[in-house]
Amino acid sequence: MRNFRLTLSYDGTDFHGWQMQPGLRTVQQTLEEALSAFTGEERVRVNASGRTDTGVHAVAQVANFHSETKHEPDVVLRAVNARLPEDVIIGRCECVPDNFDANRHAVRKMYRYVMHDGAVPELFHRRYCHHTRYSLDAEKMARAAAALRGTHDFRCFETQWPNRASSVRTITLLEVHRFGDWIWLDVEADGFLYNMVRAIAGTLINVGRGYWPEEHVEQIVAAGDRTQAGPTAPAKGLFLMHVTYEQ
Amino acid sequence: MRNFRLTLSYDGTDFHGWQMQPGLRTVQQTLEEALSAFTGEERVRVNASGRTDTGVHAVAQVANFHSETKHEPDVVLRAVNARLPEDVIIGRCECVPDNFDANRHAVRKMYRYVMHDGAVPELFHRRYCHHTRYSLDAEKMARAAAALRGTHDFRCFETQWPNRASSVRTITLLEVHRFGDWIWLDVEADGFLYNMVRAIAGTLINVGRGYWPEEHVEQIVAAGDRTQAGPTAPAKGLFLMHVTYEQ
Repeated sequence: MRNFRLTLSYDGTDFHGWQMQPGLRTVQQTLEEALSAFTGEERVRVNASGRTDTGVHAVAQVANFHSETKHEPDVVLRAVNARLPEDVIIGRCECVPDNFDANRHAVRKMYRYVMHDGAVPELFHRRYCHHTRYSLDAEKMARAAAALRGTHDFRCFETQWPNRASSVRTITLLEVHRFGDWIWLDVEADGFLYNMVRAIAGTLINVGRGYWPEEHVEQIVAAGDRTQAGPTAPAKGLFLMHVTYEQ
Repeated sequence: MRNFRLTLSYDGTDFHGWQMQPGLRTVQQTLEEALSAFTGEERVRVNASGRTDTGVHAVAQVANFHSETKHEPDVVLRAVNARLPEDVIIGRCECVPDNFDANRHAVRKMYRYVMHDGAVPELFHRRYCHHTRYSLDAEKMARAAAALRGTHDFRCFETQWPNRASSVRTITLLEVHRFGDWIWLDVEADGFLYNMVRAIAGTLINVGRGYWPEEHVEQIVAAGDRTQAGPTAPAKGLFLMHVTYEQ
């Protein structure tokens, strides 16, 4: 029995998120079916760094699975990719120590939220960004975002709070950049609450469009009330970019 | 009655090409329905620079139509975009002299054919490029392409020749570039035969993967025989980039 680590990309558009759900097309089920078809009798179970929601994309999700297969990782990669539909691709497959757990050993994750504020939507990127309709002041958004860096109780950005033991998280990186009509928000943290990045995006969009002053973001965190924060921005702009493991 | 000129983008993936065909979803029909719904009673007919085939994309197709509408072009643009499905977008709308004809007055068109030769396909671009599976020598392709510049009888690249009065065309620009795993072919000409750019792409791919020597391209043109040229490369890599009009 070996432990395989996968780095995979998926287009969330046509998936009901990562997690297996009866009767719905999910990434986990799609991947497990392709792996099980390759390994044969064996029923493969895949363990990801975390779930992603319906419509959310992944550039580099990390997952692991145990298998009796005697094939080398590069053979597994090619054979399983050949069985996967075109909206999931394994980019890397490697054997790792038996105790590696893609979920429990993840120490940080980085998400990117992509916005476009041009007068006309970007046709070929329409599934992969949120067209805001409003012009955004990205510098103001970047200044407002500074209030979120570090360790805070982020319950104000959690849909259906409380659903975890603690809503305290540490944001280790939070940046807003613009290039042409593209604005993107990079957020790295030791963990994320349900819909947290999309609620942060929706809040910063309200600042960027001039609806709220930038100081408002600090007040929202202090109030700890989801109803005071901005709306949950659409899933299609969100990408899981990177998962960090110790050493 | 005014004459409107449109510049529009479309994602060819879910269209049976530009031209109206009974029972099939085409760009022309989709656009005419949206325009007619906006203008009311009037039945609007749209005239494009040329047809694009099933699956071929457009970054900047040009079309014109005559209408009695009293609305300004920017109002037409916004109102019609609101009625169009998300895979067609009008980027520009302007009033032009009554005699402007997007088809007959086009003097040159530029197409781009996009290839990717990375070991793993690019997930988020899968509908917009041809993943070649072979590594390509782009410099060799660029040298081979030089034989096609200028005025030649291009019947060797026409599917179902003869279907036009003449197969002589002038290629005014033909370049092959690489950036990372991306290779693209830009071709500008005074006109194109049926599937010509895709046949040129398929031919240059055979050179780039080392299946044919670069001199072979010149011989194919001289022989004037479609069966000697490479296969028609997939539609999804092809984009109509620009249409040039006099003055």
